[in-house]
Order: sequence, then C-alpha cells, then structure tokens
Amino acid sequence: MNPPKQSRSRALRSADPPTLKARRLGLETRGEAVAFMHRDCHICRSEGFSAHARVRLSNGRNSVIATLFHVTSDLIRPGEVGLSEAAWHALGVAEGVAVSASHPKPLESMSKVRSKIYGEQLDDSALRSILSDVVAGRYSDIQLSSFVTACSARPLANDEITALTRAMVAVGDRLSWNRSPIVDKHCVGGLPGNRTTPIIVAIAAACGLTMPKTSSRAITSPAGTADTMETLAPVDLDLATMRRVVEQEGACIAWGGAVRLSPADDTLIRVERALDLDSEGQLVASVLSKKIAAGSSHVVIDMPVGPTAKVRSSEDAQSLSRHLASVATAFGLKLRTVITDGSQPVGRGIGPALEARDVLAVLRGEKAAPDDLRARSLALAGVLLELGGKTAPGEGEHLAAQILDDGRAWAKFQRICEAQGGMRAPPVSTTRHPVMAARGGVIIAIDNRRLARIAKLAGAPDAKAAGVELHMAVGKHVEAGQPLFTIHAETDGELAYALEYAEHNDEAVMTVEDQ
Amino acid sequence: MNPPKQSRSRALRSADPPTLKARRLGLETRGEAVAFMHRDCHICRSEGFSAHARVRLSNGRNSVIATLFHVTSDLIRPGEVGLSEAAWHALGVAEGVAVSASHPKPLESMSKVRSKIYGEQLDDSALRSILSDVVAGRYSDIQLSSFVTACSARPLANDEITALTRAMVAVGDRLSWNRSPIVDKHCVGGLPGNRTTPIIVAIAAACGLTMPKTSSRAITSPAGTADTMETLAPVDLDLATMRRVVEQEGACIAWGGAVRLSPADDTLIRVERALDLDSEGQLVASVLSKKIAAGSSHVVIDMPVGPTAKVRSSEDAQSLSRHLASVATAFGLKLRTVITDGSQPVGRGIGPALEARDVLAVLRGEKAAPDDLRARSLALAGVLLELGGKTAPGEGEHLAAQILDDGRAWAKFQRICEAQGGMRAPPVSTTRHPVMAARGGVIIAIDNRRLARIAKLAGAPDAKAAGVELHMAVGKHVEAGQPLFTIHAETDGELAYALEYAEHNDEAVMTVEDQ
Repeated sequence: MNPPKQSRSRALRSADPPTLKARRLGLETRGEAVAFMHRDCHICRSEGFSAHARVRLSNGRNSVIATLFHVTSDLIRPGEVGLSEAAWHALGVAEGVAVSASHPKPLESMSKVRSKIYGEQLDDSALRSILSDVVAGRYSDIQLSSFVTACSARPLANDEITALTRAMVAVGDRLSWNRSPIVDKHCVGGLPGNRTTPIIVAIAAACGLTMPKTSSRAITSPAGTADTMETLAPVDLDLATMRRVVEQEGACIAWGGAVRLSPADDTLIRVERALDLDSEGQLVASVLSKKIAAGSSHVVIDMPVGPTAKVRSSEDAQSLSRHLASVATAFGLKLRTVITDGSQPVGRGIGPALEARDVLAVLRGEKAAPDDLRARSLALAGVLLELGGKTAPGEGEHLAAQILDDGRAWAKFQRICEAQGGMRAPPVSTTRHPVMAARGGVIIAIDNRRLARIAKLAGAPDAKAAGVELHMAVGKHVEAGQPLFTIHAETDGELAYALEYAEHNDEAVMTVEDQ
Repeated sequence: MNPPKQSRSRALRSADPPTLKARRLGLETRGEAVAFMHRDCHICRSEGFSAHARVRLSNGRNSVIATLFHVTSDLIRPGEVGLSEAAWHALGVAEGVAVSASHPKPLESMSKVRSKIYGEQLDDSALRSILSDVVAGRYSDIQLSSFVTACSARPLANDEITALTRAMVAVGDRLSWNRSPIVDKHCVGGLPGNRTTPIIVAIAAACGLTMPKTSSRAITSPAGTADTMETLAPVDLDLATMRRVVEQEGACIAWGGAVRLSPADDTLIRVERALDLDSEGQLVASVLSKKIAAGSSHVVIDMPVGPTAKVRSSEDAQSLSRHLASVATAFGLKLRTVITDGSQPVGRGIGPALEARDVLAVLRGEKAAPDDLRARSLALAGVLLELGGKTAPGEGEHLAAQILDDGRAWAKFQRICEAQGGMRAPPVSTTRHPVMAARGGVIIAIDNRRLARIAKLAGAPDAKAAGVELHMAVGKHVEAGQPLFTIHAETDGELAYALEYAEHNDEAVMTVEDQ
C-alpha cells in the first residue's frame, strides 16, 4: 500500500479521540457490563455504534466490553456514557472521568466455539482462549449461551474435559497449603436437603485433617451448601481470612466465588442456570477445577442416584464416575466416588435455613435429628477419614460416629463458625402453610424435582428462610388431612406462587397409594 | 388437597395486586424487552425479583416478558417501572399507567430446546411451541442463542426443517393473491454486490408475471436487497400498501420484516448475526417460510458457489439444493435452484447505495453498466420466465434480454418505485479513500469475506452510502499505484476503521500475481 494513504488514515484516527464522561447509573445486572449512550451522541454517530452493539470502553488503564443501549430521552445526555455496576467496577472510574469507546476486535475465540458447534474437538489452547475471554467479560450473554449449549449438544470428550478443567484453573486464583493431605468432598447435587458438608467438615477437622472447603451457591437447586452455611456464619471470606481460619481450625466452609477459584465457572453457571442445563463435561470440569484450584489432594464425591435426582440411572453414574476418575488422575488427584441413594430428599428441610436446622440437630446429637442425614454424613466422612489416612479401610465410619457422638464435631463446628466471623441462628420464615394429604395411604414416591421447584417458588435460595419442610418419607403411612409438608416463605406473594404450583401438582409431589 | 387451603392461597393472591407506574425510558435495545425497577421497590421485595430475572409485565390487556435490571440510584423511584422501547410498545401503555409485575410461568417450550440439545428430533408441535414463544418475546437472549446453537450443533433433519418452516409460517402473517402463478426469486447470499433482484422483478413484471417480492435486510453482509432498494424507494410497506402496489404494477420490492411474514425468523436472524452462525436447516426454513408466507407458487433460487461465498463447495450446494427441493415439495412449491459462480463480487459496488448505482446502470442500459450483473440477472430472469410459463424452456434468457434492452424493464421499475412511495436517488458518500496496488500484476483472486468486512467497517449497511467500490476484477492487469478499490464512508471514524483493516489485510483482499 502507498505511504500517503497510511499516514492519512492514522491522522484520521488521532484527530478524533472520542471520549465520553462516565456516569454511574447504579444498575445491578448480575455481572453483565451494559453501557448507555444517547443516540445523537457524537461517538455513536462517528463510530457507527448501533443499538445492542458490543462496544469496548477504556479509561486508559482498564477496559471492558459492554452491550450498548441507545437512549433517545434525556436519561443520558450526548457526551455521557451511563454504566452498569459491572462496567463501572471493571473500569474503576469516578463520576465524570473520560472514557473512550471503540469497536471491540472480533473475538477470535468465538471461531473456536463455532468449530465446536460444527463438531470439532477443542484443545487446551482453544479452551484457554475461550475462558480467558469469558473471565475478562468479553462474551455477551448470546455468546456465553452458545458455548454452554455447544458443550451439551456436542458432549465433551475426555481430553476436552481435562483441557476445560485445566483452562478453568488457569484463568483463576490457585491456593497452596503448607500441609498434606488436603481433603475435600463434593456432592454432584440434585438431592434436596442433602446437606452433609458442614457435618463432614466438622468431623474431618476434629480428627485432624485439613479441609479448606469451598462451596457453591445453588445452581438450579433451592439451596447450595454456601447458601445454607451462610445462615449459620459468614461464608463470603477473602483469601486471607480463609487461610487464617484453616490455619487456626484446620478447616473452613467458605463460598467459592468469593476467592475467585475458577471464576469462569461462576459465569458459565449463571447461563446454565438460565437454561436449566448441566452437561456432564462442564459438571466434571466445574467440580474438579474448584478442587484443584483449592489445592486439594484427596477428594470424596457423593453421587446420589435416583429417578428424580440429577444423576438418574446407574449407567449415568458409571459414566460420570469414569470421567471424574480419569480427569482426576490427569491432575494427580486421589478421588473416590460414593454412589448413594437419591430416591428421596435427605433430612426434613429444603431451603437454606431449613437445611441448616437439620445440620444443627445432627451436630448437636438431638434425638429428633434426621437419621438419614446423620447416616449419610457418617458414611461419607468415613470414606474421607480412610482416604486421608486417619484410619484403616473399613473403620472410617465407626471413627466418624465416635467423633460426632462425643461432641468433638459440634465443638469444632462452632469454632469454625466463630473463626469465620461469628456463629448465628438461621432465620425463621414469616409466613407458612401446610399441604395436606387428600386421602390416606402409604407414600410410595417423592418427586425431588417438583419439591425443589416448590421450594424455589417459595423464594429459596434468595429468601433464606423459605423452602419446604417435609413431614413424610417414602414408606410412611399418612391419613387423609394429615400434613405432607409445610411451605415456608418470607413474603405472601411467594407463598402464593408455591402453593399454586403445589395445588396443580398435587400428589405428583408425594405419591400416596391406598392400602 | 383440602378446600380451606386453596381458598386461602387465592385470598393471598388477590390481596396483593402489585402495580407499578410505567415510565418510558426512550431506550433502544433492538427488540429486547428490558424493565428497570428500584431494588427497594415493594414489588421487587414482595415478589423476590432478583437482578437479571425475567419478569412478566401486564397492563391488563397486553403483557410482555422482560429482563429486569435493579436500580439502586434515583434513576428509577420505588413504585416505578422503567421500560425499554420494545417493552413500552409491546404493552402499549402511556406514561404513569399501572403495570403489574409477576413471575412468568416456566417456559415449557425450553424443555423442547433441551431435548434437541440432547439429540432428540423436534416435531411440528415442539417447533410450533418454541416459535410461538419466540414471537411473543418470551425467550431471553440466552434462550434464543441456545436454540439457534442447538440447531447448528445438532443439524436439523429433513422432517425437522419442514416442521420448522411450517412453524415459522404459522406464527406470522400469510398473504394470498387472487392470481396465479405468483413467482419469486431468492439468493442464498454470501456474494457481495449480487443485487439482481430489482432487475429480475422489473423484467418479470414487465412480462406480465406477478412478483410480490419481499426481501430481507443484511444478516452478516454489507447490504441486503431491502437495504439497497431502500436507497431508491421506500421498502417499509405495510400489507395494504404492498397489495395495492402489486395489484397496480404486478410486483413490488418490499422489506419482509415490515409485513410480519415469518417474524420469528427476524428474531433468530439477530442472534445468528451476533454468533456469525448460519445453519443449513435454519437457512432453508428462513428462505422457504418467507416464500410460503408471501403466497409464492414458483421460486428460483440463486446459489452462488465459491471458496469465499456462503456456499463454499459443490457438495454443500448439492446438500442445500436437496433440502430446499424436498421442503418445497412438502409445501407444493415449484422450485428451481440455479448454481452460479461465487468466486468474486458481482458488479462494482458493495454497500446499499453503491449497489443501487449498479442496478440503475443495468436497468438504464448504460454502456458502463457492469456486464456480470446484467448477465446474471438475465440468466435468472430467464429461468423465472420459463418456470412461470411465459416462454418455452431454453428461451427465457433471450426474452429477458429483449425486455431489458427495449426499456420495458426500466419503465416498469420506475413505476414500481413510484407506487411504493416515490423514486429517489441513492445517497453519495461524504468521505472516501482509494486503496492502491503495491505492485503490478494480474488479479488472480478476490476475497469476498474480507471485502465484505471492509464494507461493514466503513458503515454498511446502516450507513447507506458506505461500502466498497471495486475498480478491478479477477483476470485484470493492474499497475503498481493503480487503485484496486475505493472505500466510501459517511464518517471519518468509520473510514479509518475500514482503512486500518484493509492495510492489515493488504493483498489478501485482491491477490496480485506478478506477470
């Protein structure tokens, strides 16, 4: 190309350094960077930004890619750029600071997503580039959804799951501990009320194992372990706090998102949740990337299997176990999967505070504590004690029971809560309503998914006290008019939603068979 | 369930009819319904609406599902709901009108999208329910993207394409005409400057055929036929206007979106564009649903094939032709696919106004008119005249040339423009810059995709006068320093972007080989 033209095009660029004044709109978008510009703004016109375009904003130091909305009212004046909280914090600007706006470079990594859609396998570098862009906020919701969907429609091969796991670890923080072993447990989910983690952590730590537990919030369920634990103590621990708690007590139960372990996963989970989609490959990478990033060396996986659990058949369980084992081996992680009964909820409560009550009852050794929660916790803790070398194979469960029964686990749990910022009592619902059996008989089935939906309609997990309190279990006899379960809520509106759904789903929730 | 509970839950619902005052924010979001509520608003609290939740808004008559953003500033006061233009128009409200907000029912059709992701085929009723929800605005961008991606990752089988086509027709308007045959032509795209439609319509109508042509705007290209035609006459015709024009002149060239033929397709196209994804099944359904909805009986498909065209190989062309033919047969549509040369752009202009200039030159029979555009138009018009029964097989092209050369086509075109609202001259760019050959030689290849990108960076199709004007074609000899093409723009900023890309892609755009 001829030199005069080049210099002219440079002159064009430098003659027009378009900047706008930043304005904080106080807009919560759950992490999505959104920018608002007046349609008649000189930059919209000179740059040819159309509505819903992706624009790159920069203040010289930081940059962010945002979705642009055009404003035609006086909400935003020409020369201003309104920012959502996510965009505001990513730029780290103050009111009125000059922000430049330009067309973002085409996302090279989206060509990898398209390759995946068309059936090609993704390698380390492809997944690394996709996840780097995801973590940097360069993917729009449309692009994130396409990636998530592609990984379900074209299931990830074993090598791809390993590569995805590695990429998820690479784009986040990584913990290291001056001790060994570092034990961990994880439940693949799908079973309401299966809140064994706080009990297992307390037993393991009381027995001298190191267990820096990070848990997630609910993805599609009415409560994640972090949601439940938050009703008992702060879980939003930064790295320094988490380290101090673990050094002091040998264990913690923190929210994983707060320490930026596998932050790409958190973004993907938001989209999976909106789609109600949870693919095997992303599940394995999600679980193991967090364990690896947390510095774990020995991990027990609780995998409940049942017709209405997340894993529905023993074939699915075998496939998932194989993938978990294979990827774990690639990272030198010792892993044991325990397949458990997933046919009905565990404990009595479904929802953060209601589940916390069950946990407390087991830890305190109350007579009324739910047997099933206690038994599952001891079984899993037993495997963990064996895997962590605290006892011989076959003796773990007995040792776990001793530690729970003599009060050491409860004492340890209270110390962990105090170290995390102070133990507190779980909140109690302000409004509740029982759902009665229309006729007498024996409960022959409970639908986990429908129960979970009722708990979510009642407000869980955002409303901590909301959820479902079960009065029945499979095999129990019920009289007509006797309460099957009680719906707890924090608002009348949410209680009404949950009741309406329960009415329409009637005995599908609990199937009663005449005797 | 026992009666007392039911009545109580109804009482709860009616006791709390939550309404908010509508506020128009003047926010252009390209069709996405967005709602803004203050986080401390009584409804956000009582209903448990979280940020980025989907909410159902209603004013009693109309309803819309919107994405919710929480506001923590005084932008929106508690008790108000701010609405994007899409939400405002869907509700059809006035400032301050009471709008209720509730949780939308779970989208049943998303379970069909998940089935597709997991490999099941979609049937008529599944696709009908998905597209009904899409047209009603019930799908978020995340959900739309998942559906579009699933249809690419799990390519649609022939039955599914037929079902998708039927569903697309069903959810929109459908035209019927009191004449027969109704002819139509369509180009599957990917070839810059291939603007034969206005010429073919003029020839067909001048010959007495009925051709109510609806065209799309650009999807991923620098100009769609509707964009080009809009620089010559209004194309935003409502159904009544379109009917009047066709009754008067036998033909029209209107924007398809304005008459709501296959409106679901327009929504899906927005997402496909953002993903740069265009699957075979969706392409076939998109093309044929519009033809069927427009009441066409005889259709000619122009399918340019070339290494940088949309259809890249003759295998792809065969597969696409087969699917088109098979789905057309299912709807009783007579269809002929003409495979054409897609190795380089057609005509000289790329971009709405620049392409319109080429069209005018051919219609007016100007000496300088681009030969290739004339030849392609005549070949396709010939097939259409034969298919429409106006001449014997093998004689169509000759008849078409007569009608063009004796001025009948040009006269008809002017009358069509006048009937559509008045003919006008295409706009002329305000800023332009030539790109020179760095060395002499023969042009051996032209990259359609890179040229299209340059035209888009220059502002096409939104900036009507923007685009690329070619001075060279494959096989032509060029001297060093001679202009290869000229970039046209409406703003200096856009010209600079296009030039920067052209500089970095240099001779990749036009490959010069030394002689």
